[in-house]
Amino acid sequence: VENTSRHRLETFSDGVFAIAATLLVLGFTVPSGNDLGSGLLHLGPAYLAYVTSFLTIGIIWINHHTVMDTIARVDRTFLFVNMVFVLVVAFIPFPTRVVAEHLHERAAVVMYGGTILLMTLVFNVLWIYACKDRRLIGASVPDSSIRAITQAFYVGIPLNCLVILLAIFTPLGGMILAFSITAFYLPGVTLLDRS
Amino acid sequence: VENTSRHRLETFSDGVFAIAATLLVLGFTVPSGNDLGSGLLHLGPAYLAYVTSFLTIGIIWINHHTVMDTIARVDRTFLFVNMVFVLVVAFIPFPTRVVAEHLHERAAVVMYGGTILLMTLVFNVLWIYACKDRRLIGASVPDSSIRAITQAFYVGIPLNCLVILLAIFTPLGGMILAFSITAFYLPGVTLLDRS
Amino acid sequence: VENTSRHRLETFSDGVFAIAATLLVLGFTVPSGNDLGSGLLHLGPAYLAYVTSFLTIGIIWINHHTVMDTIARVDRTFLFVNMVFVLVVAFIPFPTRVVAEHLHERAAVVMYGGTILLMTLVFNVLWIYACKDRRLIGASVPDSSIRAITQAFYVGIPLNCLVILLAIFTPLGGMILAFSITAFYLPGVTLLDRS
Amino acid sequence: VENTSRHRLETFSDGVFAIAATLLVLGFTVPSGNDLGSGLLHLGPAYLAYVTSFLTIGIIWINHHTVMDTIARVDRTFLFVNMVFVLVVAFIPFPTRVVAEHLHERAAVVMYGGTILLMTLVFNVLWIYACKDRRLIGASVPDSSIRAITQAFYVGIPLNCLVILLAIFTPLGGMILAFSITAFYLPGVTLLDRS
Repeated sequence: VENTSRHRLETFSDGVFAIAATLLVLGFTVPSGNDLGSGLLHLGPAYLAYVTSFLTIGIIWINHHTVMDTIARVDRTFLFVNMVFVLVVAFIPFPTRVVAEHLHERAAVVMYGGTILLMTLVFNVLWIYACKDRRLIGASVPDSSIRAITQAFYVGIPLNCLVILLAIFTPLGGMILAFSITAFYLPGVTLLDRS
Repeated sequence: VENTSRHRLETFSDGVFAIAATLLVLGFTVPSGNDLGSGLLHLGPAYLAYVTSFLTIGIIWINHHTVMDTIARVDRTFLFVNMVFVLVVAFIPFPTRVVAEHLHERAAVVMYGGTILLMTLVFNVLWIYACKDRRLIGASVPDSSIRAITQAFYVGIPLNCLVILLAIFTPLGGMILAFSITAFYLPGVTLLDRS
Repeated sequence: VENTSRHRLETFSDGVFAIAATLLVLGFTVPSGNDLGSGLLHLGPAYLAYVTSFLTIGIIWINHHTVMDTIARVDRTFLFVNMVFVLVVAFIPFPTRVVAEHLHERAAVVMYGGTILLMTLVFNVLWIYACKDRRLIGASVPDSSIRAITQAFYVGIPLNCLVILLAIFTPLGGMILAFSITAFYLPGVTLLDRS
Repeated sequence: VENTSRHRLETFSDGVFAIAATLLVLGFTVPSGNDLGSGLLHLGPAYLAYVTSFLTIGIIWINHHTVMDTIARVDRTFLFVNMVFVLVVAFIPFPTRVVAEHLHERAAVVMYGGTILLMTLVFNVLWIYACKDRRLIGASVPDSSIRAITQAFYVGIPLNCLVILLAIFTPLGGMILAFSITAFYLPGVTLLDRS
């Protein structure tokens, strides 16, 4: 029974991840005006926001599986925190659309960074709840793995604070940092103990 | 063969739950006007409607699995009532969008509450059909569990009537009640005999 | 290996059914104007189109599983015809939106009926290809079941021709017939040899 | 553990394929104006783009499974390249919408062909990475199968370059070639060693 609950929670979360990632494409608007080619090239902000959000959701999907792999059972609180977590993930297409249309406005990138930060925070709460006193952790998972995962996840918090801080001074800079974290830094860290 | 039917019905329903929840984000409109930051803050009604609907779908997803866990087989009537049930769940993104754009209008919140009430009613029909004379219930499920589930589900009916009644006098109040039920009350009741 | 192919084809098709059904809700437009309540009531055509299309996709989902249950293996042609079939199913949200906005125009309901007819035709091709000389049928399936399925599926062709014919004279009448077929007639026929 | 990773990657990718294919229908716009029937007939470009993209995604879905069938394990690089691959697949609904609205403009069809070419390139990188020195290939897969798959996939690159070249001179011609490749040529080649 316990394993069934875990399996369902995983299936529901996976569904939300895949759908949210695929809905990102609806943030693109077909350019109007005489020169279609130039209009398509000037969608730069939309392309940047799309790639950043898609990779972010992809990484969080991998991290979510890392968590689920260590867990032996789920309880009511875990189920509820996970629901709040996927609620935030499913919200990502909206700030992505905002950035796509207003890349050079501070409010857009601050909201984008804030959403990713909120997602990272809820994800850390989910993990910390699960591994406090090894509450939900399977017996076969060594303590060293738990510590390594905790550290890898924690890194996301200061990084996303940095995105928001930078966005206050230069929105474009903040978005480029968000993209760089997703494309270059996090893949290495988060996948470390899988292969 | 029977178990396959049950499994498919579950997979189809789960798919609709996850997609309907993730489509809710399309209810947000990027604000136009000079001040983007203030525009994003004034989306308050949209955030409230999004969170309420997402958690409502999340809870109904959990409840649906509680039902499926007690069921040994499905028949034609159950299949048809379930189809009507997911039809109502898949409709939720529309009243959510209506509330997001017209939080202070009576018709919007009454329609929202009416949709959730209709979903709750169809869900109760589904359950009552299944457990009348233990028609579709597995032999290993004790009568006490059935009674507990019946009571937990029934509570949703008067609660959602209250939302509609309150919305007639104060639309915002009705919506805040809908949110509170979803966020504070129902999680405790409905998950009682799982964890 | 064969069973894996069959399983994947089923999963892909099921995904398209669930997503297409859930996307139907995007056909609703929040009414503008002074009186929201009256605007919501005047969405009648949209509600009719939504319910008809949702139940149609639900029934075709059940029928598709009836087919897959009798099949022992899939080949290249079956895979391709099935791809064309889900292509037509995934198209249904568009004629649904057209009917929702133009219920009283002949072209709208003729196109709607034509899409459902096309889907029924391709589905019959899929089934006839599979059961010709029991090409892909499992050894344990009796001939009588095959005949019963063939007859049940075939009925959809003249019924949908009738919808188109009626729509030429009275679009509303055609749509009400389409709804009635889906809600009252087909569930009985198609589920006959399951339950 | 390795098999679980492979299975998840497959499930996530399958989800994106099914959702991206089903989202294509959102590219259709209900025609405005007096004559609805003529408006619906003049959506020709949208129908052509829809069918081409749907079949393209269907074929790539089959090809992706062909790859996954030969693979014994996945590593970090494979996971990342696959993420980039589904990112490009999930983008297809946008160029499809662009072509649907601007079939006769060079920029539209060049962008469309460019997206399919990019998808084909990333897919070839994914495969070449996996089969270089049989890095991730299962022991039971014969070398002859690997060579056959490599050749079948490679064909997509020059074919899609041809689409782009033709589109520069005649956008409509380029799109008809893209459709023809998808409908007539590729199904034969890519399914060769399945059936």
